[in-house]
Amino acid sequence: MDPVSAIEWSQVLMSWSDGKGPLHQRLAAGIRQAIRHGLLIRASRLPSERALAEALSISRNTVVSAYNALRDEGWLESQTGNGTWIRKDLGAMRIPQWVGQRDASSTLLGVLDREGEDAIDFATGTPYPLRGLPAEALRLSDADSERLLRTRLYYPFGLPELRAAIAARYCSEGLPTSADDILVTTGAQQAIMLIASLFLQRGDTVLVEDPCYFGAVEAFRSVGARLQTLPHPFHDARLVYLTPVFQNPTGTVMPARQKEELVTLAAERNLPVIDDRTLADIELEAIDPSATRPLAFWDKTGTVLTIGSLGKLMWAGLRIGWIRAARHLIERLVRLKMAYDLGTALPMQAQAAKLFAFYDQAKTLRREELSAKRDLLARELPPEWKFNMPQGGLFLWVKLPRGDARELAQVAMRHGLVLMPGSNMSAEQKHTDSVRIPFLLDEPELREGIRRLDAAWQEYAPGTPRYSPPRPEALSW
Amino acid sequence: MDPVSAIEWSQVLMSWSDGKGPLHQRLAAGIRQAIRHGLLIRASRLPSERALAEALSISRNTVVSAYNALRDEGWLESQTGNGTWIRKDLGAMRIPQWVGQRDASSTLLGVLDREGEDAIDFATGTPYPLRGLPAEALRLSDADSERLLRTRLYYPFGLPELRAAIAARYCSEGLPTSADDILVTTGAQQAIMLIASLFLQRGDTVLVEDPCYFGAVEAFRSVGARLQTLPHPFHDARLVYLTPVFQNPTGTVMPARQKEELVTLAAERNLPVIDDRTLADIELEAIDPSATRPLAFWDKTGTVLTIGSLGKLMWAGLRIGWIRAARHLIERLVRLKMAYDLGTALPMQAQAAKLFAFYDQAKTLRREELSAKRDLLARELPPEWKFNMPQGGLFLWVKLPRGDARELAQVAMRHGLVLMPGSNMSAEQKHTDSVRIPFLLDEPELREGIRRLDAAWQEYAPGTPRYSPPRPEALSW
Repeated sequence: MDPVSAIEWSQVLMSWSDGKGPLHQRLAAGIRQAIRHGLLIRASRLPSERALAEALSISRNTVVSAYNALRDEGWLESQTGNGTWIRKDLGAMRIPQWVGQRDASSTLLGVLDREGEDAIDFATGTPYPLRGLPAEALRLSDADSERLLRTRLYYPFGLPELRAAIAARYCSEGLPTSADDILVTTGAQQAIMLIASLFLQRGDTVLVEDPCYFGAVEAFRSVGARLQTLPHPFHDARLVYLTPVFQNPTGTVMPARQKEELVTLAAERNLPVIDDRTLADIELEAIDPSATRPLAFWDKTGTVLTIGSLGKLMWAGLRIGWIRAARHLIERLVRLKMAYDLGTALPMQAQAAKLFAFYDQAKTLRREELSAKRDLLARELPPEWKFNMPQGGLFLWVKLPRGDARELAQVAMRHGLVLMPGSNMSAEQKHTDSVRIPFLLDEPELREGIRRLDAAWQEYAPGTPRYSPPRPEALSW
Repeated sequence: MDPVSAIEWSQVLMSWSDGKGPLHQRLAAGIRQAIRHGLLIRASRLPSERALAEALSISRNTVVSAYNALRDEGWLESQTGNGTWIRKDLGAMRIPQWVGQRDASSTLLGVLDREGEDAIDFATGTPYPLRGLPAEALRLSDADSERLLRTRLYYPFGLPELRAAIAARYCSEGLPTSADDILVTTGAQQAIMLIASLFLQRGDTVLVEDPCYFGAVEAFRSVGARLQTLPHPFHDARLVYLTPVFQNPTGTVMPARQKEELVTLAAERNLPVIDDRTLADIELEAIDPSATRPLAFWDKTGTVLTIGSLGKLMWAGLRIGWIRAARHLIERLVRLKMAYDLGTALPMQAQAAKLFAFYDQAKTLRREELSAKRDLLARELPPEWKFNMPQGGLFLWVKLPRGDARELAQVAMRHGLVLMPGSNMSAEQKHTDSVRIPFLLDEPELREGIRRLDAAWQEYAPGTPRYSPPRPEALSW
């Protein structure tokens, strides 16, 4: 069992302070729930009261009270000098996966699934469904409905009209593509998952950027892959995952020469490369198309698998994504797709096919909306916070002048703000000094979020850094 | 490498004869495509010309011509006395999964994705979208659309109104259920996949019925599980998968006493049991509700995970399924769901929630439709074919008086009929004497299918059995 540090523990408890009642009761409830949900199985030993108090930026007495209550209720046991642990006889079914320990999903789950909560979401990367499209773009016609209601087919590859529309879009962008090169997926997340399942076995190495989109990390971990961050030699890797255009979360664009070298090198080694272009259409400035070209532009051997989605440009709720790849790979991926969900919802596919007619209009609408929000956020952040202004994408990648973003996120939660610490974007839990801040909310929410962020920072920042990594206590258990 | 018999090979080539041109050219094209699509990697050695000819029910000369052509083109190599194999230097990317070798997906893929083909589908288990519902049941209202278009949420657990509707349905059937016990999935297939991923690691054993729904077998195989067929001791298993009500494919119903014993035994061992009720609402007769009770009715410890779907009752194209399980399992499954597709399409969920108001009406409409089709099929099958009349579900499970259903399927394909041999429903490739025949097509198609089936049987059956399992040649390589 790997030891789990207090600050990692605090990630599992992310939203514990989000309820009502005294802090120690909320903390006890959070730990109780995490045990119940199996999030703490492997971390059967708890951090010391002092270490957890520091990681959560609360008083030691609060943790002492919470531990006492849980001991009384029979959830925890303690032994003087040996610490505190979760009672072993609580276990039930054997579940091999350690789900949700270090991942961002506990944080995200709260934000992605709650309605009418007061907390402001500065964590997720989902824009509002695009406004300003003609009404018919978002409704399925009676004729389309009736046509679909006459078919027994699942279309595991995707509805022919949608595959054709996706291929035509690539052609118009200078990348010759046939409908047979396209597999429609239930969002880009499924695209990543299918490719991970095709190429990776437990213990295989996948190369990712650092920082990196955490949904991809989750997918790779769920098939048991080991993650290495680039730069790293290609020879022992089985798969490479990249977001070269408007990188998630940094917003950077990989230079054309580097793209070309990378594709050449990968092709020499028959190494599949995922080019995740989920954010590539979110241009916030007028950009030369040559700068945002897909990796497939340089691919002569079929080593690149390109992922796209309508989620960010149009509407994530449609759950429409796709893979563009060599036909023989599409033929294999579709067999996995059949085991995963047999096919993507037909009405959504028919609607998506129609939305392609509005693609350029959507790019313009999104640019106008998001560049204004980006500028507002950039203007209003605490002036000592550093970031590079991104030309595209959905986020500012902000470096704190001091402190640990995980601790700041804890403080922010008590101010009614959900923050995503940089370490959640890192396969190696680095970037603890950074935060990914989306500019997606409408102006009043965005302003209120900035106000709460400022208040949390005022509370957190005046002291000296309260967390400096190699503390003896954190390492001792 | 496991040896692969000629008849297994023939499964990969299932639809080879479906094209135009002389038979030997079609066979060569089929083998070429299977190599290209990576379906034959592990089976690098080909069956002898005679063995393949028998398995495909064609002449040996046809196979000789096909092999010769492929040798000339550089796909195959031969050595006298050593047989014929796929050239090793054709390989490109290393793909660890052996996708589609023994599975039904190659057959199904053709049927699930093709429009306007002449072949009649006697293979897949998808009914037509239900007719006779009020028009408003199948359209999303403007108010619903607008509400969804204002949200950034993904609802990984499912749209609250849909979770509530599913829970209320269980309550009305006598199974107390809260919305928190429900996870909405992208069809029942994803439900199986998520549960497989949660409980199974490579090499773990899952217990299934024999015969069994092949989509479940595919999901379990895709996570590297080993399959054992029931009856089998529970102690070394990690998961049990059952379709107790209107079993797929046999249509049988497990007696209440057996259900109760099974749940008790599983609970004693903390062994999770999947109760897949995808077909349970397809009642073709008036049936006492106590006979079709879910396993969860007897579950006091949370050992049962119940799977449901609107796919068969209403419309598979919606891709709406769900899992009912103990809350702590739902909390873990949702984290996997986030890695798999983040959430199910929102408009489909809103529409599904409304469809629950028509649930009982839908059951009646389906019963009227499908019992008539069942009776037609049962009346028109060759009289020497044996089956038990099912009280529910979508299939007749038919035993051939002689011969091998895989060979019959090959002959049927050349008569323009896609058949699903029983071995595709068997984790152990048994039931080679059986065929699963769905009664889902409308009367003219159904009658034409029966006509082609009869013609294929007339061609195939007059001789003595051409395939008797333990042939020296099939075992020698």
